[in-house]
Parts: sequence; C-alpha cells; structure tokens
Amino acid sequence: MAGKEFDIVVVGAGILGMSSAYHLQKNNPKKRILVLDRFSGAGQGNTGRSNAMFRNTFTSTDNQTLSDTTISFYLHLQVNQNQDLGLEQIGYLWLMSDRQLAANERHVEGMVRNKIEIREYGRGELERLVPGLRADFGESDEEAKILKLDRVAGSIFGVKCGRLDPDRLIVFYRDRFIGMGGTVAFNTDAVKLMIEAHESLDIEGEPFVWQEARVNGVEVRGALEGEIRADAVVMAAGAWNNELLEPRGMDGHVKAKKRQLFSIPARNDPSLVNLLYTKGFNELGLLPMVILPKAGVHFKPVRIADEFWVACEDEVNRPFINVPDHDLDAYTAEASFYDRNVHPVLKGYFPQFRNARPKRMWAGLYSYNTLDYLPFVVPRDGLILVGGDSGSGIMKGDALGRIVDSAYREGEESEAMLYGEVPYRVSKLGFENRDVEREEWVI
Amino acid sequence: MAGKEFDIVVVGAGILGMSSAYHLQKNNPKKRILVLDRFSGAGQGNTGRSNAMFRNTFTSTDNQTLSDTTISFYLHLQVNQNQDLGLEQIGYLWLMSDRQLAANERHVEGMVRNKIEIREYGRGELERLVPGLRADFGESDEEAKILKLDRVAGSIFGVKCGRLDPDRLIVFYRDRFIGMGGTVAFNTDAVKLMIEAHESLDIEGEPFVWQEARVNGVEVRGALEGEIRADAVVMAAGAWNNELLEPRGMDGHVKAKKRQLFSIPARNDPSLVNLLYTKGFNELGLLPMVILPKAGVHFKPVRIADEFWVACEDEVNRPFINVPDHDLDAYTAEASFYDRNVHPVLKGYFPQFRNARPKRMWAGLYSYNTLDYLPFVVPRDGLILVGGDSGSGIMKGDALGRIVDSAYREGEESEAMLYGEVPYRVSKLGFENRDVEREEWVI
Repeated sequence: MAGKEFDIVVVGAGILGMSSAYHLQKNNPKKRILVLDRFSGAGQGNTGRSNAMFRNTFTSTDNQTLSDTTISFYLHLQVNQNQDLGLEQIGYLWLMSDRQLAANERHVEGMVRNKIEIREYGRGELERLVPGLRADFGESDEEAKILKLDRVAGSIFGVKCGRLDPDRLIVFYRDRFIGMGGTVAFNTDAVKLMIEAHESLDIEGEPFVWQEARVNGVEVRGALEGEIRADAVVMAAGAWNNELLEPRGMDGHVKAKKRQLFSIPARNDPSLVNLLYTKGFNELGLLPMVILPKAGVHFKPVRIADEFWVACEDEVNRPFINVPDHDLDAYTAEASFYDRNVHPVLKGYFPQFRNARPKRMWAGLYSYNTLDYLPFVVPRDGLILVGGDSGSGIMKGDALGRIVDSAYREGEESEAMLYGEVPYRVSKLGFENRDVEREEWVI
Repeated sequence: MAGKEFDIVVVGAGILGMSSAYHLQKNNPKKRILVLDRFSGAGQGNTGRSNAMFRNTFTSTDNQTLSDTTISFYLHLQVNQNQDLGLEQIGYLWLMSDRQLAANERHVEGMVRNKIEIREYGRGELERLVPGLRADFGESDEEAKILKLDRVAGSIFGVKCGRLDPDRLIVFYRDRFIGMGGTVAFNTDAVKLMIEAHESLDIEGEPFVWQEARVNGVEVRGALEGEIRADAVVMAAGAWNNELLEPRGMDGHVKAKKRQLFSIPARNDPSLVNLLYTKGFNELGLLPMVILPKAGVHFKPVRIADEFWVACEDEVNRPFINVPDHDLDAYTAEASFYDRNVHPVLKGYFPQFRNARPKRMWAGLYSYNTLDYLPFVVPRDGLILVGGDSGSGIMKGDALGRIVDSAYREGEESEAMLYGEVPYRVSKLGFENRDVEREEWVI
C-alpha cells in the first residue's frame, strides 16, 4: 500500500482523526482516504486514556456550540440509532466557593441566554442531596486551613453532561468509515511530512524560498513503509502533531502535559457506595461528575465497576511534553501524586474518601492550546491541522470532524453544518482570522 | 554574589533585557537589579547577530506605536544627547508587484492616517532613481519565469526607517544601568526557574496543586553558581526563554528559526558601488534598505564597509529551534543557502549582483510569535515574560523596556508611558486580554 497515492491521509486514529475520516468519507464518497496510526487500533493513544466525559457548560459560546451539537449527535446515535455508546447523562456538578460563584455570575447568565440547560443549588440543598459533603470548615480545622479550602457556597449543575465509552464511540466512527470504503493502517508511524515545490525542477534542496510549496504526503514506518502521497494530509495526532510539524517549521499551537487518573474502588465501603448512587441529580440515580472548588479536583462515578475516577488540574510546575517519545514516562501515573496533590483536597470535602487509595492509575497527555483553550482547524499548504482541543476531543469530536470536512471541500471561508443544522464558519477556529473568546471553565 | 537576594533578576542581556533593566532601574532606583547572561557581554546573542534595522512601517497600529516611539527615543539620544548609535535614516524601499500594491492599499491608507511618513514611487521613477533595477522581464526571460518573478509595479518608501549599530545601542543601556547602581553578571547561565509555594510547608514535592506558587528566583551556573532569589524574574532571553519555561510547563509563545545574513563586498565593482551610493532617497546619499517582491529577499548598504548585507524570509521547511543548544548549528550560515535561495532572486531584480558572492556570512535565531507576530509582555506568578518581538527587538526595544517596567511597578492593567508621552496599556501585549491586530508586513 505504501508508495500508493491517496486523496487524503489522516494521521492519527484518535477521536479527532476518526471523526474527520468518517465525515470526509461520507461527504466525499469517491475519494480514497487512509487513516494511519502508530498504535495497533483506533483510540489507543490519548483518546483511550481520557476521562471520556462530555459537557456543554463552557463560557465560550464557540465551545458551547461545538460541544452541544456533538453531544446531540451522540445522543441521537444512542437513542435513535441503537448505537450503544455507553453514554450516561449523569450531569456535571460544579461546587463553588463564594468567590467562584461571584466570578462566574456573568458566565452563568451567558449559558442561560444560550439555552445551555443548567440548574443552581445552594449550600443547604447540596448538603441535603450529596451524602457526606463537607461544605464548611470549623475554625479549628487545621487541615482545611493548610489546604486553604474555601467553603462550598453553591453549585452550578450542567444537565446535558455526562460520560460515555470512548472505545464504543471510536469503533462507531471506524466501522462506518471502513464500511464506506475507507482504509485504515495501524502499527504505522508517520515519521516525516513530505513537502514539494508546486513546479518542481528536481534540484537538490527544494523547495527553495522562491518556490510555492505544499505538503504532499507522509513518510511512514512500521506495518507500512515508504512514502504515501496525498492531496491533503489531516494532522490529527494530538501532541504528536508537533513531531511532524516542528521539523518543517510549522507551529501546531499545541502544548502537552501529563495528566493522571486514579480509580478508587467503592464496593467494600458503604459510605462510598452510598455516594456513588446519590439520588436526585439524574434519572440514573448516580452521582454526577463533581468538580471541587480547589485545584480542579474532580471525580466521577463508574457504575459498571463500582468505582470513582479521580483527577485534578495540574498547571504550573508540570513540564511540557511537546514531542513525546514512544516509550513514554508520560504514560506512567504516580501514586505519590495522588497522595500529595489529589487526596488531601478530596478527603477535605468528602471525608468518606479518608482511607481511599487508588486501585488502578494511568496517565495520558492533555494537549491544549495555551492561548484560548479552544480547538483549531486550519487548512494550509496541503495540510489540515486539527487539534488544541484541550481535553475536549471527545466532547467536540463530531463537530470538529464536520469542520475538517468543510475545510477540505470548501476551504477556510466555508461554513460547516454541525449536527442539528447548526452552521459554523471554519475560519473561526483558524489562526489568521481566529474569532473565539478565551475559555474560562477549564479543568 | 550567588545565594544573594535581588529585587529583580533579568535573564538575558540582549536588547530586551538591557532596555528593561535600564527602565526598571531608572524608575525603581532603590531596587537591587541583576542582569545575567550566558555570554561574556551584553548583546552577544541574537541582538548582535541581527540586521539591526529599524522601521515604523507596520500594518498593526500597535507595532507602529511601539516602533515609532522607540525610533524617536534613539533619534533623541543621537541628535540631542550626543549618543552616537551609528543610526542612519536611510529609509526602507519596499518594491512591490501589482498584486502586492493592491493587497497593501488599505495598509498604506492606515499608515498615512496614523501619520507614518511614507512616500510612493511608480515604476518609471524607480527605474530612473535606482541604478540597474530590472523592474520588468521580457517574455524570453526563462530565469524570471522559473523564479516566478513579478515585475515591480511601484514602491512604498518608509522615511523614518534605517539602521543602527546594535553594540552602541546596547552599550548605552548597559552603561546607564550600571551607572545607576545596577549589577551585571556575564558568563552566567540561568539553568532553572525556582518556584516556591506562597506558604511553604517544607515538604518534598512542593508546590502541590492546592498551593499558590510563584517564581522566586533562578538557579545559575558559570561565573556565578547557585540560587539567586528575587521578587521578580524578567525573562528576556529570546528563544532561550523556552529552555527555562518548558520544564515548568509555562508557554513562552515563542518559536525560533535560523536566519542567515550574507555580506557582499561592493568595493571592487563599480556597478555595486554605484548602487550603494544611490542618491535621491535620503540625505546620506545612500541606497535605502530594499525589499524585493519575492520571498522577502532584502538588502541594505553598509557604508562603513562598502558592502551590502543580504537576507531573505525563510518560512515553511526550516525547522524550529525552540530550545537551542549552546554549541549551535543554528549559528552557522550556509553558502549553499545563499546560492540557491537568495542569489537567484537578488540577481533577477539587480543584475549587477550576477557575480556577487558573500565575503562573510553568519546566522542567528529569529524568535517570533507565530500567532500575530507582535511582541508580548506578560507579568505572571513572579515572572515578567518579554519576547516574541519577531525580529523587532531593536526597533521596539525601548518601548518594550518601558512596558516591562510598568508591568513590574503597576501590573498588567497599568499604562506605560512610551517616549514622547505616548501612553500604552500593558495588557494589550498580554495573553489573556491581548488586543492587537496580526502584523501583515513581516520580513
């Protein structure tokens, strides 16, 4: 297959790559499209390692649109198309301090204006609904003082939010893509972007600065070896985009940091089981995803395994891993990180986690756009860059795939049609005419 | 000296570091300020390797303000203060194709509106004024066809533009800084940003995610060794900022590429001497800086050496060098680059360069903000980042030093006072509330 030509090569079979491939093949049925990935299957990189949550509660209206239409599509698949994505609308419960509530007042107004379905809970209600929640701290609580835990003043609850099974989602896109005639090549590593001069003179050192040049394929190693030529290369490899872009002097505008997830078993602890099956927030009788007022510590219930998955934000002081190696320290979680960073905050607000130790832990790369935390889609010189999703690959994946397709077919000034007949101008997510507000609700 | 405390440490004694140190010391006379640099003197990094040109002809009004006030300050120093900066107002002559003239019409109107002094020349005038200029190409000119050289349709001439001597400029800032009591430490390498928790508990692994943390100094090696504590660290090390910022997971928003300069002797070639001393553009009777319509190829006259310095833009296909090594391939120019990339375009428009070969050549790092090509000044967590000047360190250096000082004294929401009593809000150059238009005139 290597040495062959394709119309489009998609680098990366994570959620962004597979969603892009699906929408591209659907709308360009005659085009020969190849998806390649260094792992042995789709979604084996950071998609499969993610928390796989979704929400439409963003402060940026663009993020609201991208996520809301994507979630609607997933709901449509599960409810109307009998595609079991393991989707559970458990909701997001953002516990906030006085200061946070005040700072977010205008954002909440914005969400209400944009018909993002939210509910607000006061402290008393939360104490009544959420078993074991410690919403306030006594004067003598030394630990809360050291941790500077603010009391919980209230909460914003996002209704159209929840979790899904990332494997099932990506298998849906993969199988549909293959069913329409698309080609996948796993265990295949893209090692170099090929660039050629528009009108090559076949001289060593091309392209020269006075030549127009464009990407015209990728060099690969592994199950496939050699040069694969293509009219368009979709770069959807997350943090790995940098590995191909940097040597060509193209800025992928993505930084990546290690993020860790810790699973806490609930089964043998009645107080944790009780918390897991908190009633009153959703029809499933499950605790929502809970975000604490400190350091972005958050946890979600995993019903099928009777466990919680816990994590936190991790900003300054964690190094960037911009061009990750294959054998990756970034994929190894650290028990000491849980002990020192996550657990103190977790048990501060929920004392039933006092003796909770992780049963399993893993890590992945959180790749993000450090300027505004919104994704980008940029068609340029034979490339279409998609990324910078900032942990939102799954929850914005369908919209981004449609935008990539629109960028391919009609260019940066076109309007993509998102699920539910919502038009969206491609150039809003570009670099040159970028038109988005910085996202303020980042975890 | 290491182990001591300073109020401010400035990392990098290039133009941005020295200008910042000067304005900081001037406005904070009691503060103990240290400038450190890995090289043996000020301006020995990329400042000293630059083309040392200045212009106020930018499309972004912010760039206009930053450069125009900076140039005015330098002119004030040289004319009123008897500081010989080697400043020569030779002007910038942008030769443009029909397409370029049309595309820049609105930018030229913007400059006129903002009182940037420009003159326009038509093709006939240029042919009369500029010796040897080939402004048009015959149907049978195969070389022009291969190179896709557009004919010169006209020109925009920037009056308040020219060259200066970067060593003299930086010596001015350095000597004044030392004269006011400032300290410099050369041959001293900043190897690590020190970060501490606000209220440290002296536990291994701090700062934890639940602690507030800030930069509180730098670890150094070389002439000084050890930890230098400071209330504020100004990062002004150009591409080397990344070396300290990346391990801390802070985005310096700078990418760097190798750029090369080639000096062409004119002395023994009457046609080149004739071009060097082109009359009619400035009071010095010198050719202005000339920018050709292709690939940003440009050259300037260096009167004192009877030579031209030639260079070009170099975008896609040149790798980023984001965290440069000390022994630096990026500092070695390539004769073949001149031969294949620069020379063909140069001799296409100016045939008198037909046999011109570089006598000397060198390279440096062009560090730039790939999003909008404007500089930034960002106070954050004990740091003040300054950079992203995109090749404009010298021509915006004074303004940026004043903005760094204002950021230090009064924070991101303050207004700096640029030379000539021009107020400028610090946050315009920040990340969160960045308020600048993307620069279109980049070379």
